Amino acid sequence: MIIVPEKEIAGLMTRADAFTAVEQVFAAMSRGDAYNFPVIREAIGHEDALYGFKGGFDKAGMALGLKAGGYWPNNLEKHGVINHQSTVFLFDPDTGKVRAMVGGNLLTALRTAAASSVSIKHLARKDAKVMGMIGAGHQATFQLRAALEQRKFEKVIGWNYHPDMLPNIEKIADEAGVPFEAVPLEGMVEADVVISITSTFAPSVMADHIGAGTHIACMGTDTKGKQEVEAALLARATVFTDEIAQSITIGEAQHAVGAGLIQESDVHELGAVINGTHPGRTSDDEITLFDGTGVGLQDLAVAASVVDLAIEKGVAIEVDF
Amino acid sequence: MIIVPEKEIAGLMTRADAFTAVEQVFAAMSRGDAYNFPVIREAIGHEDALYGFKGGFDKAGMALGLKAGGYWPNNLEKHGVINHQSTVFLFDPDTGKVRAMVGGNLLTALRTAAASSVSIKHLARKDAKVMGMIGAGHQATFQLRAALEQRKFEKVIGWNYHPDMLPNIEKIADEAGVPFEAVPLEGMVEADVVISITSTFAPSVMADHIGAGTHIACMGTDTKGKQEVEAALLARATVFTDEIAQSITIGEAQHAVGAGLIQESDVHELGAVINGTHPGRTSDDEITLFDGTGVGLQDLAVAASVVDLAIEKGVAIEVDF
Repeated sequence: MIIVPEKEIAGLMTRADAFTAVEQVFAAMSRGDAYNFPVIREAIGHEDALYGFKGGFDKAGMALGLKAGGYWPNNLEKHGVINHQSTVFLFDPDTGKVRAMVGGNLLTALRTAAASSVSIKHLARKDAKVMGMIGAGHQATFQLRAALEQRKFEKVIGWNYHPDMLPNIEKIADEAGVPFEAVPLEGMVEADVVISITSTFAPSVMADHIGAGTHIACMGTDTKGKQEVEAALLARATVFTDEIAQSITIGEAQHAVGAGLIQESDVHELGAVINGTHPGRTSDDEITLFDGTGVGLQDLAVAASVVDLAIEKGVAIEVDF
Repeated sequence: MIIVPEKEIAGLMTRADAFTAVEQVFAAMSRGDAYNFPVIREAIGHEDALYGFKGGFDKAGMALGLKAGGYWPNNLEKHGVINHQSTVFLFDPDTGKVRAMVGGNLLTALRTAAASSVSIKHLARKDAKVMGMIGAGHQATFQLRAALEQRKFEKVIGWNYHPDMLPNIEKIADEAGVPFEAVPLEGMVEADVVISITSTFAPSVMADHIGAGTHIACMGTDTKGKQEVEAALLARATVFTDEIAQSITIGEAQHAVGAGLIQESDVHELGAVINGTHPGRTSDDEITLFDGTGVGLQDLAVAASVVDLAIEKGVAIEVDF
């Protein structure tokens, strides 16, 4: 049995590896070769923690297992450790024996960033020049860093509810040598690609904040009631997602479907675009919207990838289990 | 982070420790201090395997986590390893960090045996003399060994669909110095305590196979459709269980409730008897029936206990995770 501790992940996993792992598993999901199990998510009545399991099986990648963990809101203040805590466990699909245990914190950030990047690769216009960011928290830095590798962006524009956090993402733009500009939400209409990565229960982004031809990846909505963008935007856009069942229940599409503006059949798998069974973007003025809800199979995919890297580089801990 | 491999469990965990852990967690469940999460159980479409997660949180014992694993029917033939494979993962309820990983195969056998033992302690007549076994497979040996410690039994009687397997349990009776006798099902009426531990979809034990005053623990039914005893027996008995929600959906009580012979309110928690909030047996000719469905909290309880023992005895593997 192999162990890859959290502290080793940064030295092993590249954005490119995460991208490949997530792209492959989205494709496998759409082919029917990989599926997610029902999600368990419990308010445990201790430390205000949310805890649960996201599991799945990818027959193509032979990855079976789960991510376990959750959100402990008092961690940083009480214990000096981050509030999101997760661990990935991989099992041997041939025998049911545990195969690996992998720190899941950085991997979660990387796989979430990879998901919007995969959507940009397959759905954004090739000539996209302006990258827009809605949100400037810790995860936003991961999303932007990965996004900037997908097109030759000439400018990053950013908005955040608390403008004092914008330097977080300005720093990432600087590192990539791309100028940064803070804009009001109305200014976002200039962007060719937008990522929204906020945690909110009322939409910030209205339909007229997004210009024709834009690709927008909505990455912040993963719970019933959360909402980042006005439902009317989904009616104007061609909507894609990681998993349709999640998109219409806990993702951004829950509101547009609930209001009758779109139907389940209007939501398409990003994996189908990757596989070529859906055409994806069909014109330069089409708005494409990716509803990234986050699935357990992404976690298994990046964890399986990092286990291979850890073995290759000799940093995997082997335990006779 | 602490690891206790499967091979260490036999040298660490005693029947007495398993008994205490299971008795305490049943009591905590009934007090509302511990609860099980919804169970995930998936036919993964590979090797005919069933795989899933049983999780929970025991606030009294501060045990949070899950058992993951399942049933790989081809394991023994193809790989020379047992078909049931499971691993228990414990998390720190204060931070969400993974605390321990524990081999779950022997623990599962021990906690299942402990459950029927706890039911015998609290529900069987004090003067019980004849122990009856329905079933003689691998798990039956665990159940019988643990049961024989609960009363001064003078005889073990046994029945199995395949009589050639009866020597499995005869051996256990011999080891305990108690005479063994094979009986037809009708002969089971002589028993003061009965454990049924079979995997069947049609009942073997009819209501008139069980005598007045008997305590019967039904330990084999954990799935919709499975059934060990005639539903009419539950109507004659006072029915107890580990978890009422499981008992009436996937446990032995599913059939009696489904047929309208008993109601959900007729099924009582064994934990309530342990806590003294239910009187348990109230007369010497009452039939008591324990529907042991198996809950994740039992797995967490024995795993937490074995982690303590492993640390105490210096065999815990510590990994800087």
